[in-house]
Amino acid sequence: MDALVANMTEDQLLVLVIKYVKEAKRSALQQLLEELHPYDVAQLYRGLPEKHHHKFLTFLTSDQIADLIQELEYEMQIEILHKLGIERSSKVMNLMDNDDLADLLNELSADKIQEFLEVMRKEDSQKIRSLMSYPADTAGGLMNNQFVWIHVNQTVRQAVNKLKEYASFSENIYYLYVINEEKKLVGVVSYRDLLIADEDERIEDIMFSRVVSVSVDADQEEVAQTIERYDFIAVPVVDAQNTLLGIITVDDAIDIVIREANEDIEKLSASGKDIDFNTKATTASFRRLPWLILLLFIGLLSGSIISGFEETLDQVVALIFFMPMIAGMTGNTGTQSLAVVVRGIVTSDVDRKTVFKLIFRELRVGIIIGLTCGALILLVATLWIGSLTLGIVVGSSLLITLIVGTLAGTVIPLMLYRFGVDPAVASGPLITTINDIFSLMIYFGIATAFLSQLQHL
Amino acid sequence: MDALVANMTEDQLLVLVIKYVKEAKRSALQQLLEELHPYDVAQLYRGLPEKHHHKFLTFLTSDQIADLIQELEYEMQIEILHKLGIERSSKVMNLMDNDDLADLLNELSADKIQEFLEVMRKEDSQKIRSLMSYPADTAGGLMNNQFVWIHVNQTVRQAVNKLKEYASFSENIYYLYVINEEKKLVGVVSYRDLLIADEDERIEDIMFSRVVSVSVDADQEEVAQTIERYDFIAVPVVDAQNTLLGIITVDDAIDIVIREANEDIEKLSASGKDIDFNTKATTASFRRLPWLILLLFIGLLSGSIISGFEETLDQVVALIFFMPMIAGMTGNTGTQSLAVVVRGIVTSDVDRKTVFKLIFRELRVGIIIGLTCGALILLVATLWIGSLTLGIVVGSSLLITLIVGTLAGTVIPLMLYRFGVDPAVASGPLITTINDIFSLMIYFGIATAFLSQLQHL
Repeated sequence: MDALVANMTEDQLLVLVIKYVKEAKRSALQQLLEELHPYDVAQLYRGLPEKHHHKFLTFLTSDQIADLIQELEYEMQIEILHKLGIERSSKVMNLMDNDDLADLLNELSADKIQEFLEVMRKEDSQKIRSLMSYPADTAGGLMNNQFVWIHVNQTVRQAVNKLKEYASFSENIYYLYVINEEKKLVGVVSYRDLLIADEDERIEDIMFSRVVSVSVDADQEEVAQTIERYDFIAVPVVDAQNTLLGIITVDDAIDIVIREANEDIEKLSASGKDIDFNTKATTASFRRLPWLILLLFIGLLSGSIISGFEETLDQVVALIFFMPMIAGMTGNTGTQSLAVVVRGIVTSDVDRKTVFKLIFRELRVGIIIGLTCGALILLVATLWIGSLTLGIVVGSSLLITLIVGTLAGTVIPLMLYRFGVDPAVASGPLITTINDIFSLMIYFGIATAFLSQLQHL
Repeated sequence: MDALVANMTEDQLLVLVIKYVKEAKRSALQQLLEELHPYDVAQLYRGLPEKHHHKFLTFLTSDQIADLIQELEYEMQIEILHKLGIERSSKVMNLMDNDDLADLLNELSADKIQEFLEVMRKEDSQKIRSLMSYPADTAGGLMNNQFVWIHVNQTVRQAVNKLKEYASFSENIYYLYVINEEKKLVGVVSYRDLLIADEDERIEDIMFSRVVSVSVDADQEEVAQTIERYDFIAVPVVDAQNTLLGIITVDDAIDIVIREANEDIEKLSASGKDIDFNTKATTASFRRLPWLILLLFIGLLSGSIISGFEETLDQVVALIFFMPMIAGMTGNTGTQSLAVVVRGIVTSDVDRKTVFKLIFRELRVGIIIGLTCGALILLVATLWIGSLTLGIVVGSSLLITLIVGTLAGTVIPLMLYRFGVDPAVASGPLITTINDIFSLMIYFGIATAFLSQLQHL
């Protein structure tokens, strides 16, 4: 059967699964699923007609359901728990990775959580409770406490025997963590080191002792950065006393990187949290509206600044033609600088020297692009409207607003970061408002100063 | 020494390294570096004063230089090769991971590449040449051909012996790939499986036969997606005949995810490619200017539309006050929709059904936010200017432009994706232009229609 299954397409597999379910071939189904990755089983479950779900679940081993459930979205997870009932659910939960389980429980009501925890083995429910006590976006909230540790003075043989004993749950683990008598983390050994070592060697002699770990309250961004920089498969999580509490694996790091990037994009585009292809229209609207209403009033603020210059506009209507360009360009250069800062913070260390260097760099960028675009628009405006004075007004306004906009897009997010606020929030609202207001005031201010020379237009 | 080094800070280590370099303690330095991760050694090298670089490098083993060089930026890599000279460089290159080496060589001139390849072992230079022939953003360009394979009918003992033999270069490898007589990939075994299996078991009996692999010409995005979905540590790369060519490891997948996210953000914010904290001001300006100049002309296009309605504006100046708000809001809702599409494509499959569902969803989102914001601005405009007619003109314009803007932000990137263009490019320029033009034409069009009723303002 192996060779057959290995070459089947997803659709062929689905047909086979439906056949097994209909004919109640329990063991054939279980055997088939053993050949597949959890992700593939989850894809099959998603493709399976609703009416077969219940029967399919009853045919699986608890282990298989635990693997499956970890790959599904919250809604489907809850649905499965509902279908399994409290007894079977608890059995499945006992087999789930602790971090996935804590995430799942966090989605349930307090009553429901209580109900599940009570049916679980006491030892497990305590572990879960402690995992749930850490904020979700810290190392504590991400860690898994299914790892294997070994004493520093044991031998390679003892380590391998321990691994064999814990084989089932050491599935996705590639390092063995070494602790001393006081249970402090003192080293790490990879499976490869174990494989190539002699059985009688002492762990202490083959371990790597400069262990890189993360603190239990470290931010998820720091965790992902550590794993990415060191090319780790997993990183140990420790408390202030260097006691090993859990591990975070590289697949979680990838999820963090994707999540953080999505958050940056959401904030930069002010598009509201957690909107994907499956979000309902009303939910998506309610998540987008707060930003839009805020931006609406910001737009009105610009309008009221314009209305303050009504007299100038009344006398030189041509000034309006360049208004969208000047406001837009200031916003654009601000957004460009903001994007550089937001992504730069992800990958670089931000110390005082870096900050000053960056601000000075952006000042020079502002001057270069200001001079280029200013000269260009001076030419265009002079030719279009036929007035060199207007050209000078528009060109010099653009020069100044581009420098101001570039600096605002750099300094504001850096200041926010300094005060512990996520700089990506400084997107739409703050930078746009400030740049809109600055640009209109600079433009109309300069225009008003030149009003007597412009009036013949 | 171990315990001491394990607890030293980065600064203390640097002081120690400088001491060893000054006192020419070659073996002490080599031993110290063995205790550190390549990333930490690279950090030390970056912190080391320029004048010590040469001496530091001469004290290291070629293996250590190979590890170090892989962690550094291109500029520093080239500098090191220059310092080492062609002979020593080739030795170091022989020890580098093939994918990193191919990347490095791609940065050099054709002459220089030739020079290096000639000094290398023939076998190695051929490998490198073949790696360099694949496009950098495909599986072929990313893969490493330092992996370990084993024949399907060998035993666990034979596999472990082979691993011991290749110990030095199987450092970051956690799976053993299984091939048959025709050298086709037929299975995979993890180090853990080897550890817990009996020595006499046959590989065929413990291997996992439904191997997930990627094609050598698969896009890097697909590679990262495969690793992320299956929580793999590595994925094998095969050709059309299922012959194993190389592997791509999870650390490369993280780099891809970060790079793709940065590219999306760069394109969405039209901020130009590859600008980070270290980019020079002139370089950054030249990368940002093309976008800004394009956006400048787009801004002028809006201006020329406004100038077409000069007569209407002349008669009802108050219309100008709401112009920035209407254009801004249309742009904002378009950007929101665009962000949802761009990130959704990364994680979801885009079939015909999904597309229609999404467009219909966004239509409803447009109507909901249009009605909300339209009603709000009707109220504000009526109270501010004291004209219900103006309120109706502004409110109904905003309703229509928000629906159009939301749809444009959805349909345009989906169409681009359909035709194989990266939808993130549809950022600034396309969506902003179209939405600016639509919104101004709708607004001034409606206003002109109501002109006789508005004229008393």
